[in-house]
Amino acid sequence: MKSRSIAVNIGNRTIGGGNPILVQSMAKTDTRDVVSTVNQILRLEEAGCDLVRVAVPDIESAEALSKIKSKIHIPLIADVHFDPLIAMESISQGVDKLRLNPSNIQDEEWIKKIALAAKNRSIPIRVGTNLGSFKKKPDNPVEALVKNALDEIKILESVDFNNIIVSIKTSDAILTVRANEKIAELVRYPLHIGITEAGPKEESLVKSSVGIGCLLMEGIGDTIRYSITADPIEEIKAGITLLRSLRLRKGGLEIVSCPTCGRCEINLFEIVKQVKEEFEEVDIPVRVAIMGCVVNGPGEAADADIGLAGGKKSGVIFRKGKAVRIVKEEHLYSAFRDELKKLIESKK
Amino acid sequence: MKSRSIAVNIGNRTIGGGNPILVQSMAKTDTRDVVSTVNQILRLEEAGCDLVRVAVPDIESAEALSKIKSKIHIPLIADVHFDPLIAMESISQGVDKLRLNPSNIQDEEWIKKIALAAKNRSIPIRVGTNLGSFKKKPDNPVEALVKNALDEIKILESVDFNNIIVSIKTSDAILTVRANEKIAELVRYPLHIGITEAGPKEESLVKSSVGIGCLLMEGIGDTIRYSITADPIEEIKAGITLLRSLRLRKGGLEIVSCPTCGRCEINLFEIVKQVKEEFEEVDIPVRVAIMGCVVNGPGEAADADIGLAGGKKSGVIFRKGKAVRIVKEEHLYSAFRDELKKLIESKK
Repeated sequence: MKSRSIAVNIGNRTIGGGNPILVQSMAKTDTRDVVSTVNQILRLEEAGCDLVRVAVPDIESAEALSKIKSKIHIPLIADVHFDPLIAMESISQGVDKLRLNPSNIQDEEWIKKIALAAKNRSIPIRVGTNLGSFKKKPDNPVEALVKNALDEIKILESVDFNNIIVSIKTSDAILTVRANEKIAELVRYPLHIGITEAGPKEESLVKSSVGIGCLLMEGIGDTIRYSITADPIEEIKAGITLLRSLRLRKGGLEIVSCPTCGRCEINLFEIVKQVKEEFEEVDIPVRVAIMGCVVNGPGEAADADIGLAGGKKSGVIFRKGKAVRIVKEEHLYSAFRDELKKLIESKK
Repeated sequence: MKSRSIAVNIGNRTIGGGNPILVQSMAKTDTRDVVSTVNQILRLEEAGCDLVRVAVPDIESAEALSKIKSKIHIPLIADVHFDPLIAMESISQGVDKLRLNPSNIQDEEWIKKIALAAKNRSIPIRVGTNLGSFKKKPDNPVEALVKNALDEIKILESVDFNNIIVSIKTSDAILTVRANEKIAELVRYPLHIGITEAGPKEESLVKSSVGIGCLLMEGIGDTIRYSITADPIEEIKAGITLLRSLRLRKGGLEIVSCPTCGRCEINLFEIVKQVKEEFEEVDIPVRVAIMGCVVNGPGEAADADIGLAGGKKSGVIFRKGKAVRIVKEEHLYSAFRDELKKLIESKK
């Protein structure tokens, strides 16, 4: 299948061109505070973050970038608004990508200088339009967003700069989907997708998953960002879960667990919690089914690498649909953990 | 627009026929324990649950149904597997709907009896096929799921029963979407949609939101259920958030809040948490923007009924895009709360 987007290199990663979809986040620390910023980025790397962005609101922050970059292992993106001098300093500090709104830099001469500097360093620029950036909410927001993105692309193209990534974000899932569907028809630059200001964790997981997920199901989107008002690790976990749910990323623990109901006679919530805590970092593909009863239990468990179905104060442990052990509830988690560990060892 | 589905009545509610999409959940208590079950259902009602299902694994559970029903205010659905006597007892106990897999009852004579009893009471039956119910995973799961659902529908139609709701569920978002797209083309019965065994809270919020959400965006789905291995209240909250995100339900507090970044100089996480805790139950439509800085702040805040944008250890409070007050950080939440309360009062 021909890829919708062209490939763009960012440090040691490639976005678009049919490459795996990358999950990104943004540090929530003061960028001038190198130690805190690096520590947060290292935690993000550990969680599986592919690219990280930092806010660069002033020259001091820009001057911290090379120090930050020297201590991390994933590409570093500078998020710059309004001030061209900060963009220039970020580039000379060696960042791997710039996020810029050419329309809020305004001076065309400066945009040319920034584009030339980025070109000399072979780093891409993400141009992005947010509904929030319009002074007045447009009558047809989808059209206005697409037009604004095209205008920003044109500014860069006019100075012969084509190393571009595009984003259109709003805090509304439907608008974001529609605008991205449209821009995906019109340009072949890789698309960065997400819902902006999606709110607290639960709200964002719902809103972002439907918005980003619908686009990914249509083959639109080359890198994703969950925006969550919480620890950025949550953004990475959600992104990876979404990619796995849509079979766009392999590996890791998948927990298929029932919601429980009146038929469940074991403490399933606790077992699921323990499995999640103990095995969350497994990166080989393991599908684990944890079911409260026989109605859904064995059926789903048959499809899983390993499964557990509750009975009367006891449980059955399955592997590939075959019962391995019947265990009393008080030993259920430890027996299941042993079997799961054995399975993971055998897959290594 | 012509509705995709016909309307089906369930107690005091109507599913399908272009009516608002209903959010449902399932009690996780032992159905025989009337007090616990009623208490959980009353909590679900409070959270906005439209319909509630209970597991009926034995005759004792069935015999508790009329007592439960007499103490709650939303339609009660009996979830019955395997045993036709339990189905018959549930119907005579006065439940508002039956969830049944005709293919796991098997005896056609019994199915006729159950359908006749349901018809006499004018209560619908949901026939549902789950991928987990297949003895062997089919080669083409989408086709097999659709065929199985059509077969179950035919069993009921063959005894002249048409008061039907259909569900096709799997624990895979893509399969569920594809199978529901197909069944939606073939039948006009209302569709109950959800991802089964979607796992712990975060995983389910991601997986269910993309699966259910993509279908709703295509106009498919008349009632939804988030399956989450957690307190069922979480299922209702997620369902309502999803409907609001897709503009399928109005009202309530919408928090648009930024993820924060190096530009944020106030404790935004804490403010968002406080607003959420204090105003979660508001049911008039209020769009609240809580932004860490001026880059996204005023723009998004302009679109919100009320907004807050952080500055240097201070914040600006907006109403409909106009600055109302500038407040020091230590008074920011209390000042914002006062303005929000005033706004809510004025809208009542």
